[in-house]
Amino acid sequence: MMIKTTVQQQVDWLAQFGLTEDGGVTRLLYTAEWQQAQQALRTRMEQGGLTTDIDAVGNVFGRIEGTQTDDIILTGSHVDTVVNGGKLDGAYGVIASIVAVTELLEEHGRPKKTLEVVSLCEEEGSRFPLTFWGSRSVVGQYNLAHMDGVIDQHGIPLHVARAACGIDGVPTVRRVNRFVELHIEQGQVLERKQKDIGVVTHIVGQRRYTITIRGESNHAGTTPMPYRQDALVAAATCIARFTEEANAFDDTLVATTGQMHISPNVPNVIANDVKFTLDVRHYDEATIIAYCEKIFSALAEIAAQHGVTYGIEQWLDVAPVAMDAHVNEWVKTYLQQHDISYEEMVSGAGHDAQVFGEVVPTTLLFVPSKDGISHSPKEYTAAEQLQTGIDVLKAVLYQLAY
Amino acid sequence: MMIKTTVQQQVDWLAQFGLTEDGGVTRLLYTAEWQQAQQALRTRMEQGGLTTDIDAVGNVFGRIEGTQTDDIILTGSHVDTVVNGGKLDGAYGVIASIVAVTELLEEHGRPKKTLEVVSLCEEEGSRFPLTFWGSRSVVGQYNLAHMDGVIDQHGIPLHVARAACGIDGVPTVRRVNRFVELHIEQGQVLERKQKDIGVVTHIVGQRRYTITIRGESNHAGTTPMPYRQDALVAAATCIARFTEEANAFDDTLVATTGQMHISPNVPNVIANDVKFTLDVRHYDEATIIAYCEKIFSALAEIAAQHGVTYGIEQWLDVAPVAMDAHVNEWVKTYLQQHDISYEEMVSGAGHDAQVFGEVVPTTLLFVPSKDGISHSPKEYTAAEQLQTGIDVLKAVLYQLAY
Repeated sequence: MMIKTTVQQQVDWLAQFGLTEDGGVTRLLYTAEWQQAQQALRTRMEQGGLTTDIDAVGNVFGRIEGTQTDDIILTGSHVDTVVNGGKLDGAYGVIASIVAVTELLEEHGRPKKTLEVVSLCEEEGSRFPLTFWGSRSVVGQYNLAHMDGVIDQHGIPLHVARAACGIDGVPTVRRVNRFVELHIEQGQVLERKQKDIGVVTHIVGQRRYTITIRGESNHAGTTPMPYRQDALVAAATCIARFTEEANAFDDTLVATTGQMHISPNVPNVIANDVKFTLDVRHYDEATIIAYCEKIFSALAEIAAQHGVTYGIEQWLDVAPVAMDAHVNEWVKTYLQQHDISYEEMVSGAGHDAQVFGEVVPTTLLFVPSKDGISHSPKEYTAAEQLQTGIDVLKAVLYQLAY
Repeated sequence: MMIKTTVQQQVDWLAQFGLTEDGGVTRLLYTAEWQQAQQALRTRMEQGGLTTDIDAVGNVFGRIEGTQTDDIILTGSHVDTVVNGGKLDGAYGVIASIVAVTELLEEHGRPKKTLEVVSLCEEEGSRFPLTFWGSRSVVGQYNLAHMDGVIDQHGIPLHVARAACGIDGVPTVRRVNRFVELHIEQGQVLERKQKDIGVVTHIVGQRRYTITIRGESNHAGTTPMPYRQDALVAAATCIARFTEEANAFDDTLVATTGQMHISPNVPNVIANDVKFTLDVRHYDEATIIAYCEKIFSALAEIAAQHGVTYGIEQWLDVAPVAMDAHVNEWVKTYLQQHDISYEEMVSGAGHDAQVFGEVVPTTLLFVPSKDGISHSPKEYTAAEQLQTGIDVLKAVLYQLAY
């Protein structure tokens, strides 16, 4: 029997594995602290009465067999963090799942459908250059071949790191009929609108580009304005214009230039080469396409005006994923009946739910993030809001499994 | 008696002192190659019949005493280069002065007024964090106290480097009544307009600023456009706007952002801190002031629109300097009479002529620069154009001194 503790205590308990000096967490895939966390979570699951197993990539599952069907309702999130991340991203969803399922078992006995919790091994891509290693292995998008040649920044191969944790075997597709994830929002929407629960309708699709502008480097003093082919001015004009278009385009479209490299980057020399990234997200792929068409035509026009040439390199293309609308309807009714404030919203960040959402009906719920901060030791959600999230998750799982 | 050689041969001769692998020149103040160059130039001056001396900072002078007045007409340029600079910047003016004055002496005997050539020790600021060390010492703007604490990137103090060249003594203000400098344009104006000589009316004033924009760092996916305080978008909007204003403001005003630093500079994170430089130049200080007032008011407006704060740090303020209009009139008549094409123009780059121009009537003449390239091994001016420059310099000096 597990001793009852508050959610905050459980969050702090899990954060001990990889706790950083400034109160954050660094828990990278297949490290000692990662291994300790997965082992401790497995023990918790067993203390809660679940039957556990660990798969060939290190996902830890805890199971209560259903009494009537062999449909499997999976719930959980990822145990890994970014470097010096927070205590909640991923971890909260893992803890919430264990609490919800063990309490359901305690209060209502075995469900009709099988309930499984999962502490997914990896989602962030912080140690190795791959993301969603846990969920993509479960659904069969990743297999052993994806480990070939993958090394971390210290040159340690993925398969060596895995073996060092005592994990082996061949990943196999695992049967899952439905997935439910609870996560912090990592944005400010719920906080600003003073809502306790986010009911996610879609996880956005993403495209990322690097745009290169090539002009001509010249003396800042001796080159009259009309003679210039200023790559930085052309790039700045693009960034301003792309943002204006995004503001005007659609309420939920976001477009961001976060990174820029200027060459030669000297105050009194006109720049001849500027690269900048563009990150575009929306829940509807057609909208992303329409926006990109619009701005790339603006890019061509701006380049011609400034006498510069340009290149567009796309390096990420993720399709939007819809969450299960039917369950969302039930959730909204439940929240109204229980007087819990909520917001239907789009997730602008990627989550394991998008991997499962491509293959099975999936539900993603958010709790607020203070100041929208995530991937930082400053990640914070009030204890009552964390508890509300667990209460709702428990209600959803009850509805689905009992 | 000096053996007659072509200008190109003389340029190549001087370039041997500090010649780089790719045909450029690195001749920094008080280095061995600098010392060899100044010694060789002194020898050339003496071979040409000039009485030479070297002052307390290493400027090398060659003199022909005037027969009627003790007015001193000084002509020359600087011997130092940037790292891997060209063979012409500075060097051409030094060579041209020696050629012009020695030929005048040979052809016409002693002048009425004293003619002095000078190979100024330093102008570029490439080794030590000071510029115009040669000309500013001559006019008394610099003295020994300005050497205190000045070190190069290897930690060698300026006074140690000076002493190592066998140069000592206290710089004293040197009598100069007029200065004439011949230089490559370092821009494309003469080349584009197919003119052989630039008659400089003013050397521009310059202001340089670093502008800091502070916004809020946030997740590129989860932060809706209206919630953003995007420092990079605000900065890009400023750069585009400042350039538009510069294009519209005045034909000869130039405004350049050449350097930018973005933080955290990550593709999927909204930037919270962006710094960019602004270099503004014009021959009329009132125009610079009016432009800066206009754009800083635009900056305030843009910052307010984007919900960001900003800071403006000015780190350079150089006043414009007018060249001697009376001599320019004479030069233009001479050029017309001799069918030499010319353009009256503003110098967008700084030159020793601006230091002298603040205290005595000064003349600055340009020859074309191929593709406007300077501070590069690719600096190039056709041999005939180099010769035309010397012919004109000789005519000016004859008019002034004989």
